[in-house]
Amino acid sequence: MAPNRALAYAREHWPRFVAELKHFVRFPTVSAEPSHAKDVNRCATWLAGHLRRLGLENVKVVPTGGHPLVYGCWQRAEGKPTVLIYGHYDVLPADPLAEWHSPPFEPVTRGDDLYGRGACDDKGQVFAHIKALESYLMAERGLPVNVKCLFEGEEEMDSPNFAPFVRKHKKALGADVAVMSDTRMLAPDRPAIGYAQRGTLRVELEVEGPRQDLHSGNFGGAVHNPLQALCDMLARLHDADGRVAIPRFYDAVRAWGPKEREYMARTGPSDAAILRDAGVKRGWGERGYTLYERTTLRPALTVNGVAGGHQGAGVKAIIPARARAKLSFRLVPDQDPQEIGRLFREHIARITPPTVRSSVAVLSGAKPALIDRQQPAMRAAAFAYQKAFGHAPVFLRSGGTIPVINTFQKILGVPTVLMGFGLPDDHIHAPNEKFHLPNFYNGIAAAIWFLAAVGATLRRSHGD
Amino acid sequence: MAPNRALAYAREHWPRFVAELKHFVRFPTVSAEPSHAKDVNRCATWLAGHLRRLGLENVKVVPTGGHPLVYGCWQRAEGKPTVLIYGHYDVLPADPLAEWHSPPFEPVTRGDDLYGRGACDDKGQVFAHIKALESYLMAERGLPVNVKCLFEGEEEMDSPNFAPFVRKHKKALGADVAVMSDTRMLAPDRPAIGYAQRGTLRVELEVEGPRQDLHSGNFGGAVHNPLQALCDMLARLHDADGRVAIPRFYDAVRAWGPKEREYMARTGPSDAAILRDAGVKRGWGERGYTLYERTTLRPALTVNGVAGGHQGAGVKAIIPARARAKLSFRLVPDQDPQEIGRLFREHIARITPPTVRSSVAVLSGAKPALIDRQQPAMRAAAFAYQKAFGHAPVFLRSGGTIPVINTFQKILGVPTVLMGFGLPDDHIHAPNEKFHLPNFYNGIAAAIWFLAAVGATLRRSHGD
Repeated sequence: MAPNRALAYAREHWPRFVAELKHFVRFPTVSAEPSHAKDVNRCATWLAGHLRRLGLENVKVVPTGGHPLVYGCWQRAEGKPTVLIYGHYDVLPADPLAEWHSPPFEPVTRGDDLYGRGACDDKGQVFAHIKALESYLMAERGLPVNVKCLFEGEEEMDSPNFAPFVRKHKKALGADVAVMSDTRMLAPDRPAIGYAQRGTLRVELEVEGPRQDLHSGNFGGAVHNPLQALCDMLARLHDADGRVAIPRFYDAVRAWGPKEREYMARTGPSDAAILRDAGVKRGWGERGYTLYERTTLRPALTVNGVAGGHQGAGVKAIIPARARAKLSFRLVPDQDPQEIGRLFREHIARITPPTVRSSVAVLSGAKPALIDRQQPAMRAAAFAYQKAFGHAPVFLRSGGTIPVINTFQKILGVPTVLMGFGLPDDHIHAPNEKFHLPNFYNGIAAAIWFLAAVGATLRRSHGD
Repeated sequence: MAPNRALAYAREHWPRFVAELKHFVRFPTVSAEPSHAKDVNRCATWLAGHLRRLGLENVKVVPTGGHPLVYGCWQRAEGKPTVLIYGHYDVLPADPLAEWHSPPFEPVTRGDDLYGRGACDDKGQVFAHIKALESYLMAERGLPVNVKCLFEGEEEMDSPNFAPFVRKHKKALGADVAVMSDTRMLAPDRPAIGYAQRGTLRVELEVEGPRQDLHSGNFGGAVHNPLQALCDMLARLHDADGRVAIPRFYDAVRAWGPKEREYMARTGPSDAAILRDAGVKRGWGERGYTLYERTTLRPALTVNGVAGGHQGAGVKAIIPARARAKLSFRLVPDQDPQEIGRLFREHIARITPPTVRSSVAVLSGAKPALIDRQQPAMRAAAFAYQKAFGHAPVFLRSGGTIPVINTFQKILGVPTVLMGFGLPDDHIHAPNEKFHLPNFYNGIAAAIWFLAAVGATLRRSHGD
């Protein structure tokens, strides 16, 4: 079953693959910015054309209420299982632009790395699977499994149209396993398979005071400043020990025994490694947990942004009429986003001083996800990493959130294998995002081996 | 000495005066925005031409390191005292633009009010003096005093070039009294003369954490968020009673006896009036003081702006690398801006958690000012108000800051008479700024009467 011809093809065509990835990264597919809607569309069309050329069938750009999905399949492996390959071609905004060493949408190679917004998250990782399919189809004249590709253009906006689409096309999307590459390894020689993701809940808090901005000379000291009140309220969301100070917030948090924590300590990143990746000298947060545990086993609340009053250059002596904060929770089993939203609202109502008005908007939520490490598809992925990277992977928890895992589990009834090819220092969601090109190369090989292993070991269980 | 011809001239030419004021307001003289530097220059040139046409001499646009000053004089009243008329023709930025009912630089009259940025602060009030000079010069063929006009283009940026200019031209600017109109009355029938201003100190606080923005999923809970740390620190600048919580902040604050506080209670705005002007239902701040006292006798600290993390639409799951706050103190006798800056720095150093770095920039400061209510020029101003508005003025403290008062006192040795024509609901520094046109009219009359009264009562004391 060794897919030697596919691997040889990948080796031979590698320079072209990198050039194509650069082309892919060049589309500024910033899904959250309406001004980039055309770029997102152009990219979807390009991607669909690309899938068609490498031999996928039934390829289409599928409109949604927002940005389109790109779909394509290959279903000629009769009696074989079906792999649903998911990824996203949209990217986060690139600001702050000034901090990029090269323009975010003009990808360049420096050393072993390809720099550009989306190079790692998620275009490079998606492209590893696409190039694996190409290598197999071109060199082996077929795939060892059936494949359905589904690439999304709204992942960085929390996938508002994705679950509805999957629900509507539940039958057509039937598969035995889903695979996606949108997570991280520990180092180039330390591959990792994700098995846990935190959930999320995004909220906005607005505090209002006077009808309009007031002169802070005339009124300073006599009128409550809503920006100050907002800061006071934000300060009351954590206690002095770094724990979230919302009553009952930890009630549903699952306690883990020594077995799991020992496994994590053995396989996961050390405190030192996490601090190095973050570029900080000291850790912070809840006592009694390693930094790896704090970012995975334990929930968190982050103030993502505050805007209030005068933001520009120079001075403007005002008491602003209002101030706003954007916050996001990361949730763990068995916290429920709805319940946490309710607790947050109650807490804000309780701590809002009578001199201002506050309002809370709950924007989007996703439950935490846990994937069984023992299932056959996980073993196939481990085998693929061993073959492609020359090292057995560890199983890792991630602090991030991939709502798609829940969508696939709940609607399609399939587990998702998280084969990450990103590195801790790839600066995803930040300036100077990059993709480590050796990981692109080995990622293609791992994706080739994964298809081979799934074809050889998984039983077909779903009916089309 | 009654300046009847000048008053008659003002009455007759009133519609033209309003049209000219509109023209003046139309220049978008936003001094803090470099893109408006040309507009500021155009306005200075226009203003100088205007002064020339009405008969002032030695008129010039004086370059500074920043925006120019406009100077003009009339010195043919031999043996008579000299009045230095000060004002500013620059304005604050007009944002938030969306909240204006009409464009800020397209002045329109609605009812008795002229709407536009700078209509009240300070173009309309400056123009009252200019039109008083015109009325006198045209109708009486001369002035009862010598006059020097000095109009600034950088007042809203804290006058960085003004004091150096006055110091350099100390002799040429010699005068017996200065007058300016950049303050408020209590109501159209309740004129007021300012006698106290708070000082100011503007500072910026920056908190830095990770080298660059981090993904809040991957790092949330393990890395201290500098935006959260900033909010925590801002929350520690006031205690629960609304007092500034910086140690020793109140050490130098002068205590006032019952006589002054009773005068203030009798003459000043009530709590209800201040709340109505502010557009809020409840007061806030230091216990044991009326709202008028809190904004004048007592110091204050206002967070004017906070910027950190994601500010735009939608969501961006980051721990920002840094966050910034702009703050301003209002200081009272005998607080010293330098000393307060030192205390602030020390306090920030003390409350900065070890997990982030903070830095403080002290931008500009001005001492509080107190003017003797009993001096002859103040009596002349009171007489002028009585004549022009039909009501005796009260003497008012203001919460704002006019550093020019200190400049004139310290460098020229002259007191400044604050003849305000603004109203509490003129929305200065805010959207929909306006000037009450009856106050413009009566302000011109008051300025005419003031020149007459100073000419009749003040002794010439300075030598040119």
